[in-house]
Amino acid sequence: MKIAYDGTDFSGYQVQPAGRTVQGEIEKGLWRLFDEPVRVASAGRTDAGVHARGQCISFSLQNQSIPAEKVAIALNTRLPRDISARDSEDMPADFHARYSAVQRVYRYYLYPSLTRDPLRDRYVWRIRQTPSIAQLNRYASCLVGEHDFTIFASARDRSDRRVRTIDHAVFFPEGARIVFEIAARSFMWHMVRSIVGTLVALEKNGASQAELQAMIASGDRSLAGETAPAQGLVFHRVVYHTDDRLAPGRVPSVARTAGGVTE
Amino acid sequence: MKIAYDGTDFSGYQVQPAGRTVQGEIEKGLWRLFDEPVRVASAGRTDAGVHARGQCISFSLQNQSIPAEKVAIALNTRLPRDISARDSEDMPADFHARYSAVQRVYRYYLYPSLTRDPLRDRYVWRIRQTPSIAQLNRYASCLVGEHDFTIFASARDRSDRRVRTIDHAVFFPEGARIVFEIAARSFMWHMVRSIVGTLVALEKNGASQAELQAMIASGDRSLAGETAPAQGLVFHRVVYHTDDRLAPGRVPSVARTAGGVTE
Repeated sequence: MKIAYDGTDFSGYQVQPAGRTVQGEIEKGLWRLFDEPVRVASAGRTDAGVHARGQCISFSLQNQSIPAEKVAIALNTRLPRDISARDSEDMPADFHARYSAVQRVYRYYLYPSLTRDPLRDRYVWRIRQTPSIAQLNRYASCLVGEHDFTIFASARDRSDRRVRTIDHAVFFPEGARIVFEIAARSFMWHMVRSIVGTLVALEKNGASQAELQAMIASGDRSLAGETAPAQGLVFHRVVYHTDDRLAPGRVPSVARTAGGVTE
Repeated sequence: MKIAYDGTDFSGYQVQPAGRTVQGEIEKGLWRLFDEPVRVASAGRTDAGVHARGQCISFSLQNQSIPAEKVAIALNTRLPRDISARDSEDMPADFHARYSAVQRVYRYYLYPSLTRDPLRDRYVWRIRQTPSIAQLNRYASCLVGEHDFTIFASARDRSDRRVRTIDHAVFFPEGARIVFEIAARSFMWHMVRSIVGTLVALEKNGASQAELQAMIASGDRSLAGETAPAQGLVFHRVVYHTDDRLAPGRVPSVARTAGGVTE
């Protein structure tokens, strides 16, 4: 199932002892709809305040009274206004929203402006100066490929391995906003926001591409910029493989995109 | 002063006995800033749930401790998150945000989609079918010029005269949304939302331009469609005249635009 949410009023995606969570609301809605307790898996566990346009979740049901492709529509009537189920389909039993995902795509929205804009503030990071998109893209190109991204790991990161492979990373304008899109099989906790905060600070200070490369190579987390605020981040899309359905475990050849929403 | 606000959590612009209002919050902020009671005039009194990007207000101050062009920045620190003061300047004593305005521009945002989108719902009217923009523009062209718009008047409308002159009215796509922009010196209460609701219904029913023209000519309010919901409407811009500053009362020749924000 593909879901979208406004993260503003959630304590994050994942169920936790206290606080309103996206997962909690969805599991509550499914319970009401199917009259059975359901635990859902997700492609990514977004933080408090982070939004999603193309998050994907998977779950198993005993109650098969509603055809799989109608479950999203039915669930919508049981979800709060800030979450919506946008699409649902039946998947093979070994499909798992988290483990079957081969690519996660995040977008981060920058809004260069001297004054607050109440019609945008919920979904952007407002920055005072207008950065050079060309320079930001020079930095972004240094991220693409396999690198040890220790400098973008949070101090609380528990990963045993900080090597990740970035498939693409690009800045582009969209009206008055600047969008950063980054795609990888997996990210570390806070990694995208740390990258954005660092690249914006580098651009402001007129740093060269070589300086960013040296920073990454150093593995010194103290060199990274501040973590950009949660509200600018949107979990945009998850990519699975059609092959997963046919021959799980095989190297996939054709990528299938879920959650690709044109802005 | 040019102001912007997210209308979602307001009972409307205008101060009223109960409820949180935009005018109330601004007057409270000005009082705290200048230590004197201030009453503000506005270019338009938007309804509950209606947003503004380029609303304009005017007021007089005894306390002149802050230069006029810095008042917006200073006031911002005393305003709630859903209102911002974007720009301020000194005007001649006979300037009045309401009476000096020669054009008001509204935008209405339609979002054709079968499913809710929590990242858009606050600022759009979601409609199920994708309308023909070309057909909507054929209807819109019938509105331009001077007409008796009785059919778009609310049942509670108290205007003694329902003739208005529409300067322009146009639909255009903006990503996945369809924007309707309409400009006139003045509108009746609920008029823009009544126009949008009516044109969308006409398009759905495959009505001709001639049918709309006949409806308008009939003056029969029962023929108008439902009033489109408040959250899709944004008070976009107000136009004043530079001539107002030089020779108030004279026929103006050069229009000066306040509040024009590029989307």
